Amino acid sequence: MLGFGLIGTGFMGKAHALAYRTASAVMGDIPGVRLQTVCDVPTDRAEAMARQLGFARATDNWRNVIDDPAVDIISVTTPNALHHEMTLAAITAGKHIHCEKPLALTLKEAEEMADAARAAGTRTMVGYNYIQNPAVLHAQTLINSGRIGRVVHFRGCVDEDYQADPDLPWTWRARRADAGLGTLGDLGCHLVSIAHTLMGPINSLIADTQIIHKSRPLPDGSGRAEVENEDTASAIVRFANGAQGSICSSRSAWGRKNKLDWEVHGTAGMIAFSQERLNELQLYLNEGPKSEQGFRTILTGPEHQPYGQFCPAPGHQLGFGDLKIIEVAQFIRAIVEGREAFPNFTDALGFERVIHAIDQSARDGRRVEL
Amino acid sequence: MLGFGLIGTGFMGKAHALAYRTASAVMGDIPGVRLQTVCDVPTDRAEAMARQLGFARATDNWRNVIDDPAVDIISVTTPNALHHEMTLAAITAGKHIHCEKPLALTLKEAEEMADAARAAGTRTMVGYNYIQNPAVLHAQTLINSGRIGRVVHFRGCVDEDYQADPDLPWTWRARRADAGLGTLGDLGCHLVSIAHTLMGPINSLIADTQIIHKSRPLPDGSGRAEVENEDTASAIVRFANGAQGSICSSRSAWGRKNKLDWEVHGTAGMIAFSQERLNELQLYLNEGPKSEQGFRTILTGPEHQPYGQFCPAPGHQLGFGDLKIIEVAQFIRAIVEGREAFPNFTDALGFERVIHAIDQSARDGRRVEL
Amino acid sequence: MLGFGLIGTGFMGKAHALAYRTASAVMGDIPGVRLQTVCDVPTDRAEAMARQLGFARATDNWRNVIDDPAVDIISVTTPNALHHEMTLAAITAGKHIHCEKPLALTLKEAEEMADAARAAGTRTMVGYNYIQNPAVLHAQTLINSGRIGRVVHFRGCVDEDYQADPDLPWTWRARRADAGLGTLGDLGCHLVSIAHTLMGPINSLIADTQIIHKSRPLPDGSGRAEVENEDTASAIVRFANGAQGSICSSRSAWGRKNKLDWEVHGTAGMIAFSQERLNELQLYLNEGPKSEQGFRTILTGPEHQPYGQFCPAPGHQLGFGDLKIIEVAQFIRAIVEGREAFPNFTDALGFERVIHAIDQSARDGRRVEL
Amino acid sequence: MLGFGLIGTGFMGKAHALAYRTASAVMGDIPGVRLQTVCDVPTDRAEAMARQLGFARATDNWRNVIDDPAVDIISVTTPNALHHEMTLAAITAGKHIHCEKPLALTLKEAEEMADAARAAGTRTMVGYNYIQNPAVLHAQTLINSGRIGRVVHFRGCVDEDYQADPDLPWTWRARRADAGLGTLGDLGCHLVSIAHTLMGPINSLIADTQIIHKSRPLPDGSGRAEVENEDTASAIVRFANGAQGSICSSRSAWGRKNKLDWEVHGTAGMIAFSQERLNELQLYLNEGPKSEQGFRTILTGPEHQPYGQFCPAPGHQLGFGDLKIIEVAQFIRAIVEGREAFPNFTDALGFERVIHAIDQSARDGRRVEL
Repeated sequence: MLGFGLIGTGFMGKAHALAYRTASAVMGDIPGVRLQTVCDVPTDRAEAMARQLGFARATDNWRNVIDDPAVDIISVTTPNALHHEMTLAAITAGKHIHCEKPLALTLKEAEEMADAARAAGTRTMVGYNYIQNPAVLHAQTLINSGRIGRVVHFRGCVDEDYQADPDLPWTWRARRADAGLGTLGDLGCHLVSIAHTLMGPINSLIADTQIIHKSRPLPDGSGRAEVENEDTASAIVRFANGAQGSICSSRSAWGRKNKLDWEVHGTAGMIAFSQERLNELQLYLNEGPKSEQGFRTILTGPEHQPYGQFCPAPGHQLGFGDLKIIEVAQFIRAIVEGREAFPNFTDALGFERVIHAIDQSARDGRRVEL
Repeated sequence: MLGFGLIGTGFMGKAHALAYRTASAVMGDIPGVRLQTVCDVPTDRAEAMARQLGFARATDNWRNVIDDPAVDIISVTTPNALHHEMTLAAITAGKHIHCEKPLALTLKEAEEMADAARAAGTRTMVGYNYIQNPAVLHAQTLINSGRIGRVVHFRGCVDEDYQADPDLPWTWRARRADAGLGTLGDLGCHLVSIAHTLMGPINSLIADTQIIHKSRPLPDGSGRAEVENEDTASAIVRFANGAQGSICSSRSAWGRKNKLDWEVHGTAGMIAFSQERLNELQLYLNEGPKSEQGFRTILTGPEHQPYGQFCPAPGHQLGFGDLKIIEVAQFIRAIVEGREAFPNFTDALGFERVIHAIDQSARDGRRVEL
Repeated sequence: MLGFGLIGTGFMGKAHALAYRTASAVMGDIPGVRLQTVCDVPTDRAEAMARQLGFARATDNWRNVIDDPAVDIISVTTPNALHHEMTLAAITAGKHIHCEKPLALTLKEAEEMADAARAAGTRTMVGYNYIQNPAVLHAQTLINSGRIGRVVHFRGCVDEDYQADPDLPWTWRARRADAGLGTLGDLGCHLVSIAHTLMGPINSLIADTQIIHKSRPLPDGSGRAEVENEDTASAIVRFANGAQGSICSSRSAWGRKNKLDWEVHGTAGMIAFSQERLNELQLYLNEGPKSEQGFRTILTGPEHQPYGQFCPAPGHQLGFGDLKIIEVAQFIRAIVEGREAFPNFTDALGFERVIHAIDQSARDGRRVEL
Repeated sequence: MLGFGLIGTGFMGKAHALAYRTASAVMGDIPGVRLQTVCDVPTDRAEAMARQLGFARATDNWRNVIDDPAVDIISVTTPNALHHEMTLAAITAGKHIHCEKPLALTLKEAEEMADAARAAGTRTMVGYNYIQNPAVLHAQTLINSGRIGRVVHFRGCVDEDYQADPDLPWTWRARRADAGLGTLGDLGCHLVSIAHTLMGPINSLIADTQIIHKSRPLPDGSGRAEVENEDTASAIVRFANGAQGSICSSRSAWGRKNKLDWEVHGTAGMIAFSQERLNELQLYLNEGPKSEQGFRTILTGPEHQPYGQFCPAPGHQLGFGDLKIIEVAQFIRAIVEGREAFPNFTDALGFERVIHAIDQSARDGRRVEL
């Protein structure tokens, strides 16, 4: 049995706790996990969540999680500004670390985190959970096996509408010093993780960004404050493999709840996907009679592992939480087998270099090489 | 803490165990559950699944689950022919019972089970999990609030393709004495549970059924054996509320993996749903300018409880396993609050009367009153 | 050049005139058509439509169309109650007749029309235009070539919402003596034409119908009048080839504008179609790796003739009017080649026997043999 | 009656002839058109098409069309390289000109054409037919009325697969001197016409392009020749109204037959559209209860004019040819009313400046101001 500690019990903290509780029972091939110490503030909150989620101990001091000798793996799911300090401390303590994305507010911090993890030899995992989807893994398999020929182009958009309403009050999320990037840090990096996984690394890009709602009302009614980070971002990228592509993101796109649409163009076919229908993969192959060609909708099933660990019948569908279970299981397997997980801090740093390059290019008006 | 026992560790048994392990951590408002005794055969299998799923004890004798004083709730997920004996024994032992659908092979057995549960005052729940979907619950809310006017018509189809291949070998599932009904027992009853929940009870019907593959090869190559239960079923129903509707099901429908499509016609709008996209509800309202009317795709979100217990953001999607967690939580709440859950054995009996009536009508060629 | 006469200049009359004007220019392989005489009432209307549509002469007396020696082909697009007298007169005059569906209010009248046409040896065509769609013709080709194996089941629904509003005033369409059947005559017969074309004839059926809005307000505000014909109809059918199927129709289905959905189940695959997306055919084949199987959306293109006569590139889409052009071209080819068109009066009579059988079964509560 | 002349009888030439034959009969409010002279080479081809399409005269010399005094309107549907000379001659002859897009191979030529038309006061129309779609016109109405708030972002892609196959032989279309731009000229300009119509003019952009298949086999087997124009193009644009957006196009995107997808983001809602489903408009409005919000699919109908001239019932669908009829009717109305049509040569020049700016930016690696 492995011991698990959690810092932060918001949406993602709960998702981590549920996944660590459950992964072994779902998968059958990995050790069980004991939920040891959970941290949140104030203490009441920590204790309530410990009861609900099944942790042995609660604390309002995150260093107690790191110092807990019963803890082998620590999930850091606090606001992004806190990842850097917490993960560095956990690395120093020799823990394996599962950090939510993005790694940090700045590239410099992210680099320090990746460097420290590499130096310490501790295992790391970053919560780019959409690349753990069996549908995406199947896309990767198809691409790697040459099923759609040589990959030559990529398109992707990732949109939500949580900042679409002009009347939403200003929060710290709008300040660069507290929140870092805007839609790029929240959403765009997910899309980059997909692009990178399916197409390989991005070499260079040009980009533009836009702040749609330039100020927002202060919650206390005392006026308005400036929004400092981008609502939308658009980039045109060149991959190391010679392909081009485009990437866009908006956090102010009405009606989009978890749109993360992408398509990979090959010389013999195309693969397309939409996260709002996460159990469906679209595949077009230039084979067979022209009169019968068309995009086919593949419903994820036991042919697309590890779907079968959840359900032996296709079309029954995995949910958001199941993707987190798969991610956790991948991490535990890597720990047990003594190898790196994907994506570890270094991989995630690679993704996040891209979103910062997009920001840079938009500011400078020039192509950025990576 | 409640004690949980499980009989049967196939697909549904595992789904039950995962849901009982997790429901309290997801929901926060219900007591935790201890996994006590699990039964399967042979003993090796039971022990392996106990380890994987986290049960304290394993057995190859189902009566040990029932006799375990630490067990408060028993899930019966064995083949349908075994439900009757096991649930009656569990009722006698005073356990609360969570039984997979359908209740039994015959109506007579199902009636005995419902009668026994009522007489004993034990709580029961039957695994019609698709009616626990927040999208379906929202449909129910819309209908009950009159949002689509008076409901006047229902349409539904439930199809899969697990018996579509003509070359599949014969199994016991094809024999009435062992398996009971065909597609009606496997799939049709799910659709009836939806129709009943949204439209109220069915009063009478006419129906027809079809065996597409009249015989199948015996697995040992010694010839072919007859298929005794239906591949497809179609019924035209009259509801107690005066509406009509149609219901169809096939287990031999190529490409359908978990198609459970239905629509409710109202005098002011329509609601439509497809289980293969279980996080989407289609709603048409005759309101606003005609030039802007259209079916809208509502992505399930925290406005559709208990989705928010899983995820605070819409569009992130629940999966099959999450519906089972909701079902388990409903059952635990009913137990704790000392009231009946929905659907209990009596409710389920009501659903299953309909599938047997469809079978009866198809055999007799006459309208069957319920 | 062939001479064309038209009786009735409503929606369908205009559609016929446009198609006859255009078919030769589209197709290239059929003679041109001169628009000779058009009839409507009052005279002003007839003259205005003659000018707009390009007819040489206008009249308010339909017998003038029939008596016009320059007219070879007559389209009858008047209200259904008038088809019988007009087509019989046209047959007597030796004209080729293109009649809108349904043939007549009663089966008896339809039989007389089919008998008279056969006896006179004149060519006939009935406006079941949805079976002229290249997507449907491709479905037929796939089925006939065994691409989806043996066909074993059929499902279809045809719905609109033109009678969904409870407040719509009463019209003559609600009276059986004037309008004949309700949704079956307007919509249901289209679906039967598809079922018949793809599956072969229907042998017997059981059915039920429903009048949702039992009375409607009189337009003059003097009270309410009874609705005599059905708003919905549902039938379970047996085909001559041994397959079963279900058929439903509603004219009171909010949000459905031209829903005519059907699917053909085969032992090796499935074909599905939705008229609201008339340029898309869904095909599932049980071939290739399971992990790549899925319904494919085939966009109609030049591989699906006669699409290529309209456009050499797939995905550019045909519209409703184009289907009528294809129908007219089929009819002209049959006339020129001296053979029967499909569907002629006898074919259409076969379709319409089914809708009357559905009405009969719903009234009698018994299976009707055809 | 207006006299019509046609130069070029390929796909677009036929589409123009059919539309001019039919527009008056469809619309009712515009004068009829006589098809006078048609030109193609060789003479046989011209004569055959004259017979099929209904022209009075055929010629293999395009100047005969321009010199024909019975001709008021000339459609130029020849290969793009010929537009410049032919339209300038037609302008000189005082004809009204309907030219297919793009106007010319180079901006310089296009400017000369627009200048000449303005100077001569002749009416012009360019075949950007997708902006004539009632669904697109409805989008424009919604946007202009503020229904989705302030428009803040645009996304669009236009893809086909006619150059996806690596084994296709080299043609003149791959040579800049003959064909001008690649996917930008064929497809990209359509998308720009939409963006411009819905969002207003584009001020500046950055872009990148890609030649996927760098050479192709010569048809005579004598080796391979270079492809000089782009297979894909991507641009990030800034609109005069302050919004940003992205535009992409590929002619090598397997499975895309006529994908022209775009979405307009507003501060109160979103509109999305896909040309492969040209009768559907997607609309999301942030109004009403959150639990009922979703993208609605509006099926084009008589509320979206001029759909009703084709069909009085929604959901019956217009096709590609119908959009050309609407375009022709718009042009004839402008001629009759003595005003400019949209888009005339000057409007089209505005669109085409954008595709040339995309090409320029991709070559220079810098932002291009318009």
